[in-house]
Amino acid sequence: MKTLAVVLAALLVSGGGRRREDGYELWLRYARVADTARLAEYRAAIRELVLTPGEPTMQAARDELVLGLNGLLGRRVPVADAPTRDGTLVVGTPANSPAIAALPLAAALREAGPDGFVIRALPVRGGGHHAIVVAANRDIGALYGVFHLLRLLQTEESLAGLDVVSAPRYSLRLLNHWDNLDGTVERGYAGASLWEWARLPDSGHTRYRDYARANASIGINGTVLTNVNANALILTPAYLVKVAALARVFRPYGIKVYLTARFSAPLEIGGLPTADPLDARVRAWWAAKADEIYRAIPDFGGFVVKANSEGQPGPQDYHRSHADGANMLADALAPHGGIVMWRAFVYSSEVPTDRIMQAVDEFEPLDQAFRTNVLIQVKNGPLDFQPREPFSPLFGAMRRTPLMMELQITKEYLGQDTHLVFLAPMWEEVLRADTYAPGPGSDVAARIRGLAGVANVGNDRDWCGSDFNQANWYAFGRLAWDPMLSSAAIAAEWTRMTLSNDPRVVRPVVAMMLASREAAVNYMTPLGLAHQMARGHHYGPGPWVTGGRADQTSVYFNRADSIGIGFDRTPTGSNAVRQYFPPLRERFASRDSVPDNLLLWFHHVGWSERLRSGRTLWEELLEHYQAGVDTVRWMQRTWDGLEARVDADRFRRVQGFLRIQEAEARWWRDASALYWQSFSHLPLPPGYEAPGHSLDWYRQLHCPPDPRKPRCDPVTGF
Amino acid sequence: MKTLAVVLAALLVSGGGRRREDGYELWLRYARVADTARLAEYRAAIRELVLTPGEPTMQAARDELVLGLNGLLGRRVPVADAPTRDGTLVVGTPANSPAIAALPLAAALREAGPDGFVIRALPVRGGGHHAIVVAANRDIGALYGVFHLLRLLQTEESLAGLDVVSAPRYSLRLLNHWDNLDGTVERGYAGASLWEWARLPDSGHTRYRDYARANASIGINGTVLTNVNANALILTPAYLVKVAALARVFRPYGIKVYLTARFSAPLEIGGLPTADPLDARVRAWWAAKADEIYRAIPDFGGFVVKANSEGQPGPQDYHRSHADGANMLADALAPHGGIVMWRAFVYSSEVPTDRIMQAVDEFEPLDQAFRTNVLIQVKNGPLDFQPREPFSPLFGAMRRTPLMMELQITKEYLGQDTHLVFLAPMWEEVLRADTYAPGPGSDVAARIRGLAGVANVGNDRDWCGSDFNQANWYAFGRLAWDPMLSSAAIAAEWTRMTLSNDPRVVRPVVAMMLASREAAVNYMTPLGLAHQMARGHHYGPGPWVTGGRADQTSVYFNRADSIGIGFDRTPTGSNAVRQYFPPLRERFASRDSVPDNLLLWFHHVGWSERLRSGRTLWEELLEHYQAGVDTVRWMQRTWDGLEARVDADRFRRVQGFLRIQEAEARWWRDASALYWQSFSHLPLPPGYEAPGHSLDWYRQLHCPPDPRKPRCDPVTGF
Repeated sequence: MKTLAVVLAALLVSGGGRRREDGYELWLRYARVADTARLAEYRAAIRELVLTPGEPTMQAARDELVLGLNGLLGRRVPVADAPTRDGTLVVGTPANSPAIAALPLAAALREAGPDGFVIRALPVRGGGHHAIVVAANRDIGALYGVFHLLRLLQTEESLAGLDVVSAPRYSLRLLNHWDNLDGTVERGYAGASLWEWARLPDSGHTRYRDYARANASIGINGTVLTNVNANALILTPAYLVKVAALARVFRPYGIKVYLTARFSAPLEIGGLPTADPLDARVRAWWAAKADEIYRAIPDFGGFVVKANSEGQPGPQDYHRSHADGANMLADALAPHGGIVMWRAFVYSSEVPTDRIMQAVDEFEPLDQAFRTNVLIQVKNGPLDFQPREPFSPLFGAMRRTPLMMELQITKEYLGQDTHLVFLAPMWEEVLRADTYAPGPGSDVAARIRGLAGVANVGNDRDWCGSDFNQANWYAFGRLAWDPMLSSAAIAAEWTRMTLSNDPRVVRPVVAMMLASREAAVNYMTPLGLAHQMARGHHYGPGPWVTGGRADQTSVYFNRADSIGIGFDRTPTGSNAVRQYFPPLRERFASRDSVPDNLLLWFHHVGWSERLRSGRTLWEELLEHYQAGVDTVRWMQRTWDGLEARVDADRFRRVQGFLRIQEAEARWWRDASALYWQSFSHLPLPPGYEAPGHSLDWYRQLHCPPDPRKPRCDPVTGF
Repeated sequence: MKTLAVVLAALLVSGGGRRREDGYELWLRYARVADTARLAEYRAAIRELVLTPGEPTMQAARDELVLGLNGLLGRRVPVADAPTRDGTLVVGTPANSPAIAALPLAAALREAGPDGFVIRALPVRGGGHHAIVVAANRDIGALYGVFHLLRLLQTEESLAGLDVVSAPRYSLRLLNHWDNLDGTVERGYAGASLWEWARLPDSGHTRYRDYARANASIGINGTVLTNVNANALILTPAYLVKVAALARVFRPYGIKVYLTARFSAPLEIGGLPTADPLDARVRAWWAAKADEIYRAIPDFGGFVVKANSEGQPGPQDYHRSHADGANMLADALAPHGGIVMWRAFVYSSEVPTDRIMQAVDEFEPLDQAFRTNVLIQVKNGPLDFQPREPFSPLFGAMRRTPLMMELQITKEYLGQDTHLVFLAPMWEEVLRADTYAPGPGSDVAARIRGLAGVANVGNDRDWCGSDFNQANWYAFGRLAWDPMLSSAAIAAEWTRMTLSNDPRVVRPVVAMMLASREAAVNYMTPLGLAHQMARGHHYGPGPWVTGGRADQTSVYFNRADSIGIGFDRTPTGSNAVRQYFPPLRERFASRDSVPDNLLLWFHHVGWSERLRSGRTLWEELLEHYQAGVDTVRWMQRTWDGLEARVDADRFRRVQGFLRIQEAEARWWRDASALYWQSFSHLPLPPGYEAPGHSLDWYRQLHCPPDPRKPRCDPVTGF
């Protein structure tokens, strides 16, 4: 006994020594359950597993359970053909599991629908053994249920009286990869593209499967492999073979593959003289191309298209409408069940009075013109993934056309890889916003059919460039399944699965996460400011950016002058408020009712005007910048207090990033305050933290070129 | 007992399930010793560890032993202050270990020198306990000894009568990283640069330490962080802080940091109007810069310089010699003990008659002109890292100046990431070549002071882009320690440490590795052909490449015409043979004595001339191309036979790459044969495998742009 115990201890230590928390396992770490009472409960409740593999998705469910239970329970759970004792876990569908077919689950399964699942503790079979049942109508539902059950164990929830029915709110839960065929990722901050095109299809990578596992664990069911700034080569036979190889890996995990369609592909790879969507040759070419794609990938999802925007080709090149373009592709895909997601992020070729009004102006008139298999994909805000924007008025305006909402998981404007910014509060804000279309109680979440998230995933070991960026991938999937989940609940789940179930860790980490987005708003663009980032790479402050196309400059959006700051979008200005339904338009238009956090989005406000707080605008602005810095410092102290409770690898990584974030929050604060001061000519209040450098110094900072992570180091001048 | 055994089994399975052979651990996997008799022997021989930590290098040695022994022996070895029983492992130096100071090791330690070590089985102390001693003069020697001992266990060598004294042949054992500050790697095929400049120094990465461990395990003691095509920014204060942070991580592992010096830095970052090496301001600037570097990095190694080559600035821009340039930098570094490695890879601005003669012509006259802390860094061959070249005649010509040899570990011209090509046989070939300078018995290995290897390391999970590419990093380090090690011995060590000790794996894998380089020579550039790769990316065949600078084209090197093929470098041609010492020059100049494998390097040979084999040149060429393809197919069959003995992850990865290699070997064979046929007008012999496509098809292949892995897919046309 003693010898064995020693060997056992050595093994545990040795195993522990090997395990480096490098982030690869994401929230699927399956660490041993730390609470001994819970562990005993789980071990008693799950003593054998009844699951019929065979179909690839059921095999995936079984593999995941074996991996997860081995890790969580620290023991191997034997597999049986049928329940033989108390403590059986039964997983399957009525079609593949006689045990489940025999249970009275019909009503619950109806509620679960095609993608959902039922988890219930109940007696099974004649013997009446105590069992936990994970049941679904389709194999994929069973897999989702398995991940849900594993999540309960990972978060140390009690299994007593387990009774869950869960169905996703949306049928489209997609990642959009802005990955180029050359391996770069537009707005990617986590290394190169995961897709190793040059090696496909001859050589694969185990990482593809782990990517699929991670997505399935949070319910994501589609992936758009390629950048919206599209390359027609992806539609050539050489590449479709490669796409099909990826689709094969993803299929058992319920993940469909989508591609971006370059509108000019018929010219570029089709040998046609035009890409006019009403030209019969063009229509035939796309129809044949769709046939070819579906021969290679029978469950292909469809196309995402960015057309007539930022230089991309589109139907307007031929004086056709967005509907003409989208419908042509939709007709090609329709025989195969494919869909078109047509992006509403458009730029007209002429600089408009107010760029944020373009989408509604262009798309609202087309509201009944699209085929039924077209969805319009609308960014959460009317501008471009800023730290804070109001929701896009298109969610109210397009009332007959199915809509998707596009969120940006990769933090282009929010500190990219290094800043800790948890995005769920931002997404929660927009999902729950009431569009009042046509009356109260019509929130954005109810106006859409799905969520598309611009992925933050690359080939960095930790997938996302930082440990906390993983939480944004996680939160996106969870909200796409259930948009009414709270940010706090999601943060707690993620923290428990990823870091620890110890409440001395969970509480402070969740607090940091929930505070982090408002901190970024405060140190970057408080009070409704937007798009004040440096040009091009969008990292660091650039409120002075001017030149080039006007509606891509900072000064276009901040409108700072000697009188005040902010973009007048009331009827005295661009009147963008008109795109919102009453009473929102009036609420936003009035200085008395506009929320403080959108003040400068809708109003040009004098430097010395008093706000609700009693402070002048100038004072309030400075308060917010400082509050942003202070919150980051509080995050640093909070994290430092966790040193004893978090593994050294992750502790140091996060600590290093928070150090960068604190320095850069100061950079934002000081560069912004000094620049606004050059208009307001007002002094910094006594006691205000003095800027580190002069305005000129900040303006002259330049970055070394780093296509992965363009960054100025505000301390040293690079 | 039974319960414990079950738990134990579950743990083993669970541990096994977790362990993914993703290549990250390189040859330092420390898997449990599989041979039970050996395991028992090791467990008896190593029952406690006596090692005084404290100094960082000794701490590193202890950490490595704990990690290694936990894994290899499957048990924790307790640490004691002094030997208390039989089976003690004592590690240290006479200075930090009383036990070692008391042993009669003086003679052996003298032999071990500053970097070497002694490993011996012997009784220690009064009690006369049986012990294994790892002793060295300096801490770093002890660390090297620890890695050597772990290697013995990893390869399941007996410890009976252990008596090793090992000292490195060279004091300079360096990796050269061609890493740019923007994160790209010139000729890198394993992802982006390891150095995350934008995140340094605030945030580090555990990978830096593992990089240092891997290097120390094979004796590498220096790393040049930056590309020879240099960026002066690395010498600015902002970057030196970052370099110092890396140096801190590497220091305990005995690895010095070096940088590339951009010759025009005084202009670009120094504000001077000139970079003339004889200008007093320039000399003062570099001296001050060296002082500044050493304040940040007290053990900084020195500079590598590529000057007046391929567009890089250099002393010739000011009508000064290479010696003027090198000596100026050497004088700046000398007070701090730094060195200059000045590359001999030069291009004159005018296209020469024979490019391979330039280095000798430029550098031989300077043979006594360099400071003592300058080394001339010479590529193994006179051209540029081709699959086969003769050794560079500069190794014989420069007899007074210290020389380094530069090898390319990254396989720019040898199939890059996917082709399995083990390079040790190529390096062995050059190291053992006799220069006859001034008489017989003066091999290249004896003419040099160190080896510099252009690294194949990037941030890919497996470091090197493929499992087998790791063997080239390993082999480089081992040869830099002992250039007389055989390729076969190195291949066997690496295979045992990386894959398995099972002779049914070791034998076939070593056979594959040893055959692989000649296979690549055969399918790419047989019989002494060179530089026939596609332009720019150097991937795939391009024997037709012409245009641009003549001495960078394929036709310049192959000289194919209606009469024959090959570059006449005899006295009737460029007379490059004159750069070799007799009797080599005569041997190479004569068709009767030139080795077949360098035939077309030195001679223009008629298509129908008979070779030693009795075959015509045309027949012989075709034979070699086919032999290359056949060898790859044999490698595929051999690997397929190992499916049951190699883990599934690595088995599939290698299998996928071999599939690519086989297709591309055919691509090389067919494109080359068809192109030569357009000159020879001779038929392919009956029964010869028919080319897959026409010559035009091969010539028109174009690659999608992939900065990481430019590649044409010969099967599909992309």
